[in-house]
This record gives sequence, C-alpha cells and structure tokens, in this order.
Amino acid sequence: MAGNTTGKMFAVTTFGSSHGRALGAVVDGCPAGLELSKEDIQLELDKRRPGSSHLTTPRAEKDQLEILSGVFKGRTDGTPIAAVVYNKDADSSAYENLKNKPRPGHGDYCWISRYGHYDYRGGGRGSGRNTIGHVIGGSIAKKLLDKLSIKVVAHVTQVGNVKGRTVNLNLIEEYSEKNPIRCADPQAALKMEKAILDAKSKGDSLGGVVEIIAQGVPAGLGEPVFEKLDGDLSRALMNIGSVKGVEIGFGFKVAEYTASAINDEFYMEGDEVKTTTNTSGGILGGMSSGMPIIMRMAVKPTPSISMVQKTVNLDKKEETEIEIKGRHDPCICPRMVPVAESAVAMVLTDHLIRSGYIHPTRLKTI
Amino acid sequence: MAGNTTGKMFAVTTFGSSHGRALGAVVDGCPAGLELSKEDIQLELDKRRPGSSHLTTPRAEKDQLEILSGVFKGRTDGTPIAAVVYNKDADSSAYENLKNKPRPGHGDYCWISRYGHYDYRGGGRGSGRNTIGHVIGGSIAKKLLDKLSIKVVAHVTQVGNVKGRTVNLNLIEEYSEKNPIRCADPQAALKMEKAILDAKSKGDSLGGVVEIIAQGVPAGLGEPVFEKLDGDLSRALMNIGSVKGVEIGFGFKVAEYTASAINDEFYMEGDEVKTTTNTSGGILGGMSSGMPIIMRMAVKPTPSISMVQKTVNLDKKEETEIEIKGRHDPCICPRMVPVAESAVAMVLTDHLIRSGYIHPTRLKTI
Amino acid sequence: MAGNTTGKMFAVTTFGSSHGRALGAVVDGCPAGLELSKEDIQLELDKRRPGSSHLTTPRAEKDQLEILSGVFKGRTDGTPIAAVVYNKDADSSAYENLKNKPRPGHGDYCWISRYGHYDYRGGGRGSGRNTIGHVIGGSIAKKLLDKLSIKVVAHVTQVGNVKGRTVNLNLIEEYSEKNPIRCADPQAALKMEKAILDAKSKGDSLGGVVEIIAQGVPAGLGEPVFEKLDGDLSRALMNIGSVKGVEIGFGFKVAEYTASAINDEFYMEGDEVKTTTNTSGGILGGMSSGMPIIMRMAVKPTPSISMVQKTVNLDKKEETEIEIKGRHDPCICPRMVPVAESAVAMVLTDHLIRSGYIHPTRLKTI
Amino acid sequence: MAGNTTGKMFAVTTFGSSHGRALGAVVDGCPAGLELSKEDIQLELDKRRPGSSHLTTPRAEKDQLEILSGVFKGRTDGTPIAAVVYNKDADSSAYENLKNKPRPGHGDYCWISRYGHYDYRGGGRGSGRNTIGHVIGGSIAKKLLDKLSIKVVAHVTQVGNVKGRTVNLNLIEEYSEKNPIRCADPQAALKMEKAILDAKSKGDSLGGVVEIIAQGVPAGLGEPVFEKLDGDLSRALMNIGSVKGVEIGFGFKVAEYTASAINDEFYMEGDEVKTTTNTSGGILGGMSSGMPIIMRMAVKPTPSISMVQKTVNLDKKEETEIEIKGRHDPCICPRMVPVAESAVAMVLTDHLIRSGYIHPTRLKTI
Repeated sequence: MAGNTTGKMFAVTTFGSSHGRALGAVVDGCPAGLELSKEDIQLELDKRRPGSSHLTTPRAEKDQLEILSGVFKGRTDGTPIAAVVYNKDADSSAYENLKNKPRPGHGDYCWISRYGHYDYRGGGRGSGRNTIGHVIGGSIAKKLLDKLSIKVVAHVTQVGNVKGRTVNLNLIEEYSEKNPIRCADPQAALKMEKAILDAKSKGDSLGGVVEIIAQGVPAGLGEPVFEKLDGDLSRALMNIGSVKGVEIGFGFKVAEYTASAINDEFYMEGDEVKTTTNTSGGILGGMSSGMPIIMRMAVKPTPSISMVQKTVNLDKKEETEIEIKGRHDPCICPRMVPVAESAVAMVLTDHLIRSGYIHPTRLKTI
Repeated sequence: MAGNTTGKMFAVTTFGSSHGRALGAVVDGCPAGLELSKEDIQLELDKRRPGSSHLTTPRAEKDQLEILSGVFKGRTDGTPIAAVVYNKDADSSAYENLKNKPRPGHGDYCWISRYGHYDYRGGGRGSGRNTIGHVIGGSIAKKLLDKLSIKVVAHVTQVGNVKGRTVNLNLIEEYSEKNPIRCADPQAALKMEKAILDAKSKGDSLGGVVEIIAQGVPAGLGEPVFEKLDGDLSRALMNIGSVKGVEIGFGFKVAEYTASAINDEFYMEGDEVKTTTNTSGGILGGMSSGMPIIMRMAVKPTPSISMVQKTVNLDKKEETEIEIKGRHDPCICPRMVPVAESAVAMVLTDHLIRSGYIHPTRLKTI
Repeated sequence: MAGNTTGKMFAVTTFGSSHGRALGAVVDGCPAGLELSKEDIQLELDKRRPGSSHLTTPRAEKDQLEILSGVFKGRTDGTPIAAVVYNKDADSSAYENLKNKPRPGHGDYCWISRYGHYDYRGGGRGSGRNTIGHVIGGSIAKKLLDKLSIKVVAHVTQVGNVKGRTVNLNLIEEYSEKNPIRCADPQAALKMEKAILDAKSKGDSLGGVVEIIAQGVPAGLGEPVFEKLDGDLSRALMNIGSVKGVEIGFGFKVAEYTASAINDEFYMEGDEVKTTTNTSGGILGGMSSGMPIIMRMAVKPTPSISMVQKTVNLDKKEETEIEIKGRHDPCICPRMVPVAESAVAMVLTDHLIRSGYIHPTRLKTI
Repeated sequence: MAGNTTGKMFAVTTFGSSHGRALGAVVDGCPAGLELSKEDIQLELDKRRPGSSHLTTPRAEKDQLEILSGVFKGRTDGTPIAAVVYNKDADSSAYENLKNKPRPGHGDYCWISRYGHYDYRGGGRGSGRNTIGHVIGGSIAKKLLDKLSIKVVAHVTQVGNVKGRTVNLNLIEEYSEKNPIRCADPQAALKMEKAILDAKSKGDSLGGVVEIIAQGVPAGLGEPVFEKLDGDLSRALMNIGSVKGVEIGFGFKVAEYTASAINDEFYMEGDEVKTTTNTSGGILGGMSSGMPIIMRMAVKPTPSISMVQKTVNLDKKEETEIEIKGRHDPCICPRMVPVAESAVAMVLTDHLIRSGYIHPTRLKTI
C-alpha cells in the first residue's frame, strides 16, 4: 500500500510505465465464481487505447491483454487476478532531450523532486498509459456490479466552450456511443469535434468535463466519517490525472442557493423511497440515497503541445525552452470515459463488499 | 479502519455523536517531542464552536477539552494522544417526533438504511458536531506543519450570490480574521452578513464557497497513482459534510481553456524552481509542485430549515410532513473554516511523514 | 494505523499509559444492534485487574469503565464505541530514579531508542496496564462471537516447572475458573500457587504457558497468503507483551514426527466434516478447518524483580546497578487469561466480518 | 489488501498458482535509486526451486524471472516493481481424481469451504509454489537491508529427531551453505540427509525446525502495541505454510525459568549498549534491542505422502480413501530457508521505512 493500490476489500494494485516492458494490475478480493475471460477486459481496454479515432493520438498500441492468474475454468477462483499488457510501440527518441527539463503542466518536476531517479520517457508512470491498470480493475468491478444491476456510465458533457445539452439519464449510454467524442448530444458532438481538430491543427489542446452516472446503487453505501462514498469517489476521479475538479449533483452551484430551493424532499414510489429532486446527486450524509449518483470531473487540456514553452534546466539551474515533439492527444476527454467508469466502478465494488452487498469470498446467486 | 480513521502514518480516529456522552479523537503516529498543551487544541476548537457569533446557532456548548494520554511533561511521547470533549448542552426534545421521518437534505435516510438502529438525536454522528474530532487532529497536525514553516489558511470566498474579491495570498489570514464571516474582503463580508441574517429571518439558509491555501509545502509530496496529494485532499474536503464539490487551482475553469493558455511555465527564482502562473493550484501530476496549493470547496446551504417540508414515514411507508424546530445555523461556511484547515492539515502531515519530511517517531530539531 | 490499531473491519485502537490520565479504546466497525452495556465490559476488566488475588500485584485499581459513544438505548449504533478507564492508584515515586536506567527484561531501552522523550513511569505505555484496551475490544468481540455460538477460553497450563494434565476441552472453562491460577487441573493449580508464592518471597518471578481454545469457528476463515488466520492469531498473541513463543496444535512437536503419524484424516459425522485427530490445532492451509482451534503462548517471567540488577546509565554511558521497588506480579499468567481471550476474540471477529459471517453494518437475527 | 499483500510502506502483493499461467509479485514502496537486476532476484529464486538436489521434489521448473516494471537503467525508479515467473513443468494429471477429496494435512478442505470454486491442481494457490512471490519481495528487501549492513540468515537446526549443535552466529551462513540440508552442523547434516532419504523411501515425510537470525538491526524498531516487530515477524513466519510454531530467543523455554535467571542485563561495549545474555532473542517490549534477533519456526512434515489415507468425498458426503501420486518433497525444511529469510527481510524493510531508517522515496547515500 505505498500509493499504487486502491480499495480495501476489492484491492487493485497497478504497475507499469509508458515505455517500460509491460503494464498491468493485480486485483485482490474478487469473490470466486465470477465468469471472467480476457475478452471481458479487452473490450474495455479497446475503448481507452490510443489510435482509436482521428481525434486521438496516433500511437498504435494494440494493448493485447493476458491473464496470468486468478481464473480457473472460466471463473474467478478468489485468488489474485493478475493481468498484463506488453508495450510494443514505444518511441523513446522524443524524450532524451527533455530529460532534465520539466514539461510545463506535466508532473515531471514533481516526479524528479520525489524520486530523483525517474523514468522520464513518455511521462513514465505518470503517463496516462498507466490507466490500463485502472481499466483492468474497472472491467472486473463492472462485472460484479452487473450482478447487482448497477450501471456506471460516463460521457463527455463539455469540450472547450462547447457544452452538450442535458439528456435523459437512460439515453446517455446509447447516444454517447454513437460518436467518437462520446457526447450524448449529437449536435454538440459535431461542434466539439470541430473544436478539437482546430486545436490539433494549431498544435494546441482543449480541456472539458466528463460526467459519470451510477444507477441502481442501494441506499446506505459509504462509511462515515472518513470513508464516505462521495469522498472515495472524489478521490478516485481526482486521482485520474489531468483532473482539477470534482462535483456531485448540483456541485458548485449549491453555493448560490437556499436550502428551501434545493433540499430534496422524500416521497414514496410504491414501496421505494425516492426524492422528488436530486440536487444532492444521489449522496446524502456522504452515503448513497438510492437515487442516481451523478458526478462531474473537470479535465484540463493535455499539457503536451507542440508550441515552444519556457522551462528550466534542472542540472544547470537555469532557464531554457523546449519543444515537445512526438504524438499527443489534442483532447483526452473521450478516452477518459472508460477510465472514469473504471475508477467509479472500483470504488463502488469495494464499498459494496465492505457493506455486505457482495459476498467477499464467493459469488452467491442473486 | 472501519471508516472513522483518516491517515496511514498520522492516523486520526474520531468518535462521538451530537447528543451522546462525549466526542473526541485518538491521534496515533505523532512523533515524540512536540510541545503540546490542551490550550493549543482548545484555541482551534473555540473557532469552530456554535454560539460564537450572532450569525451561528445559539447552542451554547463550551466544548472544554481534556487530554487523556500521549503527552508527558508538556511534550508528546509518541504514544496515541486521546482527547475528549463532554457534551453539556444537548437538547434532544426536538428530535423525538422526527425519529422515522428523514429530514430532507440530511443523511438520516442513509444512516437508517445502513445501520437500522441509529441515534437520530441532533443528527447523531452525522451531525457537524463530529468535526470536533477533526479539529483535535487538525490542531496537532498544524503544530507539526509549523515546524516545517508550512501554513494552512482557509477563508470564505462566497456566500449565496455574494462573491469576495481576490485578495493577496499573504493578507488573507489577517483580513479574514477581522470579521465573523471569515471573508478576506471586508465589503463582501458585510453583504454576506446581511444575506445570512436575511435568510435566518426567513428560517432558511445559504450555501457558499470556502477556499483553502497551503503555503510552504515542499515539491514532490503525494503518492501516485492512487494516493496522490490532490486525491487525498479532495477526499478530506468532500468528507467534511455539506460539501458537494472540490476544485484545485483553476478548477472547473480549466475545461474552457487551451493548454497554451494555462500551462504553468517554469523559471528560476534564485535557486528555487517556480512557475510564472499557478493555474494548477500547486499540484502537478498529483503531487505538490512547491507553489501555493489552492483549493476550493462548495458548501451547500444547511438543510435544517424551519419551513414545512415533505418527507416519508419509514415505518408506515407513507408520505408526511415535518417542521424542524431547534437551533440551526443559517450558514455554516464561517464555522467550516477551522474544519477545512484541519482536514487539509491532517492530510499534509500524513503525507509529510510518509515521504520522509517529518520523522515518524521523534521530532528532530529543524 | 500507526501501530495502535488491530483489525481491518473490526478495528480496535487503544490508548493510555500506566501513569497517565486514562486508558481506553475506540472500537470501530461493530455492527449496529448489538446489546451492550458497560457491565458487559466491566466483567471482563475485573478479571484482568491487579489486586484480585493474593498472588498478583497489590496495586488497588478499581478500573471503573465509562462508555463515551457508540451505544444508544442499550444497543450499538454502528458508530465508534469509545470507552475509558481513569487511572487512580498510580504511584510514580518508585520510577524517578530509574529514569535513564533501562530495566533488564523490559522494553525501556527500546522505548527510549525509538522515541527519545518517553513516559518511563510504571513502564508507560509498555506497561501491562495497556491491556485494558485489549479487554475493552475483546469483550465487545466476544459478544459478537456469542451470536455465532463461538466460544474462546484460555487457561494456564504451565507455571515454572509445573505442568497441568490435559483436561477435556469442554471442562476447561468450568475447572479453570475455580482457582486463582486459572488452571483446569486443580492439583497442578495448588503446586503452581506454591511455586508462585515461593518465587514472590524471594522477590523473583516465574513464567508459564497459557493455552487458548476457540470452538465453533466455521471452516474457511482466514485470508491466504499474508493474512491467514493462524498468522493473525500468532501476531495477536505475540504482541501481548512478555510472550516469547506461539504454537498451534502440536506446535513445535511436529518437527519430530512423520506425516503418516500426524496427518489429520477426514471423516463424516452426520453431515459435518471432521478430522479423527487434530494435530493441526484446527488450522489447515492457514485457515480454520472447523475443528477446535488450539494455541499456546509462552509467557516469560515478569522482568520486574526486587533483586539488584546490572544495567547502564544512558546519559553517562556507563554501567550501574538498579533495584526495582514498587509492586510487581510474581507471575502474570493468570491475568494473561482474559487478555489472551480478548486478543483471539478480536482477530476472529475481524475475520468473521471480512469473510461474510457477521454483517458489517447491522446485526441480523441468527 | 485482501490478504495477498504484506507490508504497509514496503508492500509486496503476490499472485499465482501452482498450475496457473504464471506466478509473481508487485513490490510497491521500494525507494528509487537502488541497483537492481533480474539476476539479483534469480539468485534467490534458484535457492528455493524444486529439483535442486536429490533430496527435494524432482519437478524440474527452471523458474526464469522477468522484470516488467519499476527498474530503469539498472536502478529502481520508485514505481511498483512487477516480476513474473511463467509455469512450464506443471503436471495436472495427478490431481483430477482428487478434486473433491481433501488431502489430509493440506488446506484443500479450507479452500473449498471458503471459495467454493477453487483451483485444486497441485494445491492451487495454497501450494508452496506461491513462495516464489515471497522470494521476489524478499530479494529486493535484502538489497535494501544490505545498505544498512543488516544481515538475515536462516538455517535448518532440526529434522525429525536429529538436532544440530549450536554454532557461532557468524559461522552459520558459511557452514550451512556447504550441504543441501542447509544445516550449519555438518555431522548433523549427514544424519538429517539419511533420515530424509529413509522417509522418502517409505513414501513418508519429515518435519523440522528452521532458525532465522537477523544481525545489525538498530534498536527501537517495531510499533507497540499492535504492530510490534516480534508480532509482525511471527505472523510472517507462521504464514509461510506448514509452520505450526514460532518462538524468539529462549522461546518456550522461558516458561521454566525465573526472571533472575534469564533477564538480560545491560552493559556498555565502548559507546554501544548491549546485553550480557540474549535470552530475549533481540526483542524487548516488542521492539528490537540492537542484539541479534533469533527466531525459530517449527515446520510440519509435508502432508503429501504416497500412503493410502482416509478422507471424505465432499460431493457425496461420504468417507473414502485417496493415494496421492505425483512428485513430493520428503522434507521441505531446506527449501524453507530462502523463504524464511525473505519473510523476515520484508518485515524488517517495511519497519525500517516506517521508522525512518530507510528513506521512503529515494535511497540516500549511506
């Protein structure tokens, strides 16, 4: 547990760097009996990989997954599930001359400060490529959530100044899958595409907002006071890299309202307790209320741009300039979608096991 | 570690409910040799307690602290520091008739769903009163941060629709302490006060935004990829209760910009590495960059208002109405200031010990 | 989690020193709905306290317990249960002249090496008095074990050279409660008493062996490969203080046998799977097998004796002598019985929650 | 952290089963800058593998290691070090007919009870083969210990009824490496060899005792009261599999002595504090005293023997018999030596980082 593990009962440890031998994850705590194949994980990995559309970086990694342990005769056996993806298309040449010159907006300077000796090629472990581990863990988590009919869907709601209109929760997954932006508003998707290609042509990049919705989560999930559900979800999203803000429900808008305007009142729908509004985004007192959990994360524009930028030479302690060559994403929001879903799925699964909704050692029939 | 402990090497476990016998905390992992008196903690507690101004709830708790262990001859001895505050002014009468009727906007429904048997009086452990534990842990953390000249200051930047102007970082503490709102912009403070009293007269409440600044944090603090500094700080703030959003630096604004506009470029200031801008809010790659860490949290309006609200009777599974009597805050933002400082201080201290900046067992001379 | 917490889902954090203000524990993770009164805990505390027989130290602490949180209307509410015992009869005079002279056999030298500033009075937190915290946690754990009909009983099987005969498992509790030694063999108990008084008259002390039996533990409890049940139980017992060895089933005797002689063969008893022998002591592959779990711990003689002993003066770095005055136990084995039961009960309870046998948030009817 | 991770700051997570695709480990928390090559780990792995002498099982696994991450230009970079060994020589045929018939003395019955769906081939993850992960973690730990001149050496002191004589601590490593038994007493080694071959010819197996010595450990290591050094070391050894007892220093012998006989008195050796005797085995108050740490573990005879044994058919719930074919060790004690060293090395390294002796992020020059 030195920073590379998430979860207490469903514990996912990831490893690997952008230009190292391989990346992967070890998932410990998945109950036995779950059907799991490498295709299940490969499917999710394919959504995140580069080169999947003209809008993303052309690095052509196939990212073929191999499961090393934890699965026996097509089902998990309760032991740690290790899975790896070997790096194939790493081009390290672009990084040699950046060795001691931290790229603005990236974590280079912090990695060097913390570790001294650091794999700077392609951002090392700080590279978005490490999210391969997130998705391995997240795809297994999603299969467990399926058993409880819990669905996690993320989509892009904003790119640069283009905002998508609000779409009915139950149409988001279907609509967002129809375009490479993964935006549920088709017209906004077109404008977003245009804005991204425009930034790409200038060697620049754009930021955006990704929204994540979890439906079907039972009420009472989360552990006050320091391991609440919203706290853990926020941490998981903020940890994704390039995320600079997280909000739930009305989020930052709550600052402008009175309680009488936004308190979600309760009512009965048959035997179920629901709220007439959901400004709290499905979380009350830090725990799930049973209403859809709705969160948004702010994604900053990819720092790697081809313009000349000012930085310092850490060896000589003097100012200098750099030009980042290589292949970079003009907007990472679409690729963040499966990663955000994975981050949320892993947290929910961990909490569901900790709170007695999923049996810790063997998957009982539901 | 069943939800009530924060931190791995500087571990603070809190306990206690609004109307129980006592509240407190056990702080485990504070190195030996730190001068510590109960006055140090009492000072911080006094900032958070109710009844401290005409703007807050009139519950008149003196909140007198007692240290039970971990301090010997005025210095910590490396063993767990337990401190308690006994409840004196609890008025439970207002809650009997709310027993099975979850108050809108509060966590009642979630507590009942999770635990079944639950102390509903005054919100039980879900009450903001549990932040007494935060402040005990936070005041000890602050003393350790002092040794490294690290300063954590929080202040109110927005209440309802009133926003304070940006104030120079180094004047914030001084200015915000001059008014009960704890806003560094004196004119905005006056408008905020007016808005709060206005809401109070209507039996309503207002939300707001609290900003927290940490200065002097060395670069490289934080543990990628799942225990990054921004992730842990976000979680700590989101966990405070009534918080619905957290952002760092430019926060949600990053979605609207290009990288060329907001990448923070590096330069040398003598021997020190700095950035010309700080849109990243002092965090890059999830780790501290050495620049001031600037975060903001959105605080929702206190759900307890005196207007009639719709809810359900959980026993009878039918709809009903409630009127919350008792004494409630029209705006909790001012009281959130010491709590937010504590939350951030505890996370920073934990990371500083984990990363070798503070010795884990004995405070060496600096 | 800086060393003073045991357990992951049933987490007990203890605090307090021999001569400080108070000692106690915070139990986090006990599901809601368990009937709990301070008498439940007081009962167990009374078994461990000094002055309870002519064979133990005459320090006359009443050790009156107070519950501060976590219990509402006679039942746990799922929030942390904090309980304290205030010190009354601490006589610090005997320790001033021992300040920088580590007592042989005690942890003084290690405490000083680790912390520098250290409460040396009465052994500080290293004193056996800290087991008050163990017993608070253990008594609550035992109530949960009761719900599953799991019984934990410890007894003294050896003192000095006197060994008790083997007694039928189901008679141990009854027989051992009949004498102050807590030995199930009455004749051996008499000899042990004589040996202890003899050592006491010489200002010396004796060691012994305490055996702990847990019956009714379901098969399959324990988490290979690093959190096995036998591993966690061994750690818990070895951590008690004065313990120098732990063994399970045949223990060290297994070294002398062949597998054909000691493999426990399986058979059916009705619908239940059992083993004809139980040399494995109820643990196979690190997990419970369903057979009684039988462990033994070796307790060294109390190091505090009144004879003159050689030590060093740490300030002057020169050799010196000391004479330990004050009130000391000639044999702590009888008082270790409730502590060993508590240690085992806490580990079992933690594992039972982690493995789905006890619901984590609310006690369901059995 | 669902049972397959050891350590808090030097966290080793292992994965893999006897007949699965691969086994390995992820080591998180090793500071950057340590020279590390796969040969370093391969060396230790070769000591544990089967087929390395006529006394062990003839399964001919080459166990070739591959490092997947965490090492850059020959030095660790602070990120997780993942290493794998692919299985080659797995013969699953011998296990099909044992599927629902738990082998006496093995963990099969417990694995089935816990997980239901379980990889029974070759003992699955319960197989001693999982210690490949221990040794990966242990060999990296040993390199860190080297930097502090801390040495961990294990050796066999007893096999069946043959006990080796006590050998001077500083000769143990040299002498024990001269024979395949790894016993420092050459004459006893010959008798042990004879006894093992004798048992082998009968299709039976023998147990024994392995002693582990750690020298150079600074005083004050260990975290009272629940994460003491002896507690964590005991757990690590007890977790190894086939271990039924652990003791430190005089171990179980302390029960027979008086304090006046065994208290270790302090004296000065130049500037160093030492004890004239070391019955405490280098641990006082649960922490290291600076004297050599001496522990022993009792290893039961390998349960897999070729004689017919009684067991049950779990499907039919009726009694039956089995004959275990395949290739099995007549005595695992020699192969336990590198595993025990690894277990101890990992615990020491974790504690050394937690207590400030090894920097957590970057290896500073010593």
